[in-house]
Amino acid sequence: MAKHRLDSIKPFIVMDVLEKAIALERQGRSIIHLEIGEPDFQTPKRIVESGIDALRSGETHYTDSRGILELRAAIASYYRKKYGISSTEEMVLVTMGTSPALLLVLSVLIEEPGDEIILADPYYPCYPNFIRYLGGIPRFIEAKETDGFQLKPDDVKSAIGPRTKGVIINSPSNPTGTLMPETDIKGICELGIPVISDEIYHGLVYGDMEHSALEFTDEAFVLNGFSKLFAMTGWRLGYLIAPKRHMRRLQILQQNFFISPNSFVQRGGVTALTEDHEEIAEMRERYDARRRFLLEELPKLGLGIGTEPKGAFYFFVNAGHIDNDSYKLAFDILERVGLAVTPGIDFGAQGEGHLRISYANSLENIREGVRRFASYLEK
Amino acid sequence: MAKHRLDSIKPFIVMDVLEKAIALERQGRSIIHLEIGEPDFQTPKRIVESGIDALRSGETHYTDSRGILELRAAIASYYRKKYGISSTEEMVLVTMGTSPALLLVLSVLIEEPGDEIILADPYYPCYPNFIRYLGGIPRFIEAKETDGFQLKPDDVKSAIGPRTKGVIINSPSNPTGTLMPETDIKGICELGIPVISDEIYHGLVYGDMEHSALEFTDEAFVLNGFSKLFAMTGWRLGYLIAPKRHMRRLQILQQNFFISPNSFVQRGGVTALTEDHEEIAEMRERYDARRRFLLEELPKLGLGIGTEPKGAFYFFVNAGHIDNDSYKLAFDILERVGLAVTPGIDFGAQGEGHLRISYANSLENIREGVRRFASYLEK
Repeated sequence: MAKHRLDSIKPFIVMDVLEKAIALERQGRSIIHLEIGEPDFQTPKRIVESGIDALRSGETHYTDSRGILELRAAIASYYRKKYGISSTEEMVLVTMGTSPALLLVLSVLIEEPGDEIILADPYYPCYPNFIRYLGGIPRFIEAKETDGFQLKPDDVKSAIGPRTKGVIINSPSNPTGTLMPETDIKGICELGIPVISDEIYHGLVYGDMEHSALEFTDEAFVLNGFSKLFAMTGWRLGYLIAPKRHMRRLQILQQNFFISPNSFVQRGGVTALTEDHEEIAEMRERYDARRRFLLEELPKLGLGIGTEPKGAFYFFVNAGHIDNDSYKLAFDILERVGLAVTPGIDFGAQGEGHLRISYANSLENIREGVRRFASYLEK
Repeated sequence: MAKHRLDSIKPFIVMDVLEKAIALERQGRSIIHLEIGEPDFQTPKRIVESGIDALRSGETHYTDSRGILELRAAIASYYRKKYGISSTEEMVLVTMGTSPALLLVLSVLIEEPGDEIILADPYYPCYPNFIRYLGGIPRFIEAKETDGFQLKPDDVKSAIGPRTKGVIINSPSNPTGTLMPETDIKGICELGIPVISDEIYHGLVYGDMEHSALEFTDEAFVLNGFSKLFAMTGWRLGYLIAPKRHMRRLQILQQNFFISPNSFVQRGGVTALTEDHEEIAEMRERYDARRRFLLEELPKLGLGIGTEPKGAFYFFVNAGHIDNDSYKLAFDILERVGLAVTPGIDFGAQGEGHLRISYANSLENIREGVRRFASYLEK
């Protein structure tokens, strides 16, 4: 088969790990899953009920392609109140998950093949895949472990060239769980290029306050959604906040690709943002308890933590001294002691020698995972 | 602003009509909506209940990226039984609406900029938009009114060149409501190029039996979904049946763009396909009653019907003798008598001089629409 434009789009290695883990489970093996980037909690009750109410009352038709006005207004208001900014519903587009929002943004920013988007390595694997799908070039910056693998403004500045169409930031980050310092977000926002800020892990922070790119520039494209903070992955509901002048093109793409977001799902989104949910605080506390446990235990296993992760639900640990081939290491751990983690190479060349450990699993299972890792090291 | 790769992606004119109609309604005007391509019925009760049950039982997490096995199996079985073919769940990918399925298929078939996809003019507006978005070239064939604006195998054969990557067929068709004769589907399927068969209006036929491209070739990419036949537009649930060897690439794209389809929505899909719904037969009868009414009344208004539409819920009538500028005509009718229809130019150059009239509205409203058209002609 000839070279296909899609050949540059890589499958997620984490899916290989998951599939192998499931295959082992089918053979009767016990597997501890610390590879999955999905909340282990249920969607808060009131959100579920509002989805049910909408279904029952017949909200089963197309909506405005941008999403229902109530939800767009709720999103704009949520950002206004949380970050002290002046977002309005005209800046909001509701999408079926956060990934489609990124596809739309990059489709608008990458005007021609060869246009460049700057991003850190390690990265969330979709980022370069989407850029390449659109004929663009991902311009990687080797992020440093001591910087929490986050971009620094000076490095971004040096990478800007005539074909640069934007920079992607992600704080708190997948795979690292680290936050970018406020001054660095500000510094990047002041460089004069469009900033794509993936804020899907906002709300899941433990200590430090997270910051939106919209606090520092009106030229930000904010990606966010309901999957992580509200434990709504299966609902497929996300959104984009973008400069108003781009909204027409974004809307035309949305009409073509998706017609409109799901109708009754959007009612769940309204309830998520406009009511209080005790489950959210409870989830956050439990994530943090797991995080603090791992923060103590991982170093005892010899796993390096360059920068304390204070957000999302990941540790990105240095395991290069055990085996620098993270793919081989992850599969060896899985097969020998039944513990599933994600190879760092899934997130770029800079991720090699690392493992991503997710704590979107019960403290009990995490404890068992730590025990299994210890027994792996003993062998 | 410099030329942008998205400049070739046109907004839907029908949306302009709808927005104008809504603006007039806000001014207190009564508007009859015959422009909208969406069922006016509610989703059958059992389907709604199964969505509610799934939400209540906590099915709010990611699923297999291809969709849950039960739904893929139900889709494969539905096609096997209805068309007497041998589809299996390995050939099925569940998507969030039928449009995303088309985006995935074209992303796989269009390997390089300049690759061509053959399609009829008039066409559903998304088709060329998606092709151009991917850098491909839509190779239009001027379809004849006397052929129901459907492609003929000989014309497709003549259009095949070294860059041809596929042909799109759509029977029953939007905007024309016509069916392609079985022998022509067969003829096109035997040409040896991939056939993308948009079967979203299957099930909504009145008299003639509709045929799937899969009856005639294993090299078909079938697009279908739940929006039209099951009145589930707001659920955003569609699917793709594709040759197995393309499934890996399709799945990788799906993982990147969408992660997985909505979880609880898929349960509604299973119920739609595996249980009987008296509402479906009832809807079909009511669509047909409206169709037969218009089949009598439209000619009395002087509106030409080249080929009797026997599917979907559209008439595509020739109104060139009133005004050959269909955009101007549609807006003039809307403003003067409060009747909204879609200009034929929305569907390509060959659609000029025509109007698309949707009967996804009550017989009472359709009667009133006919009266308003008559009064427009009198002025």
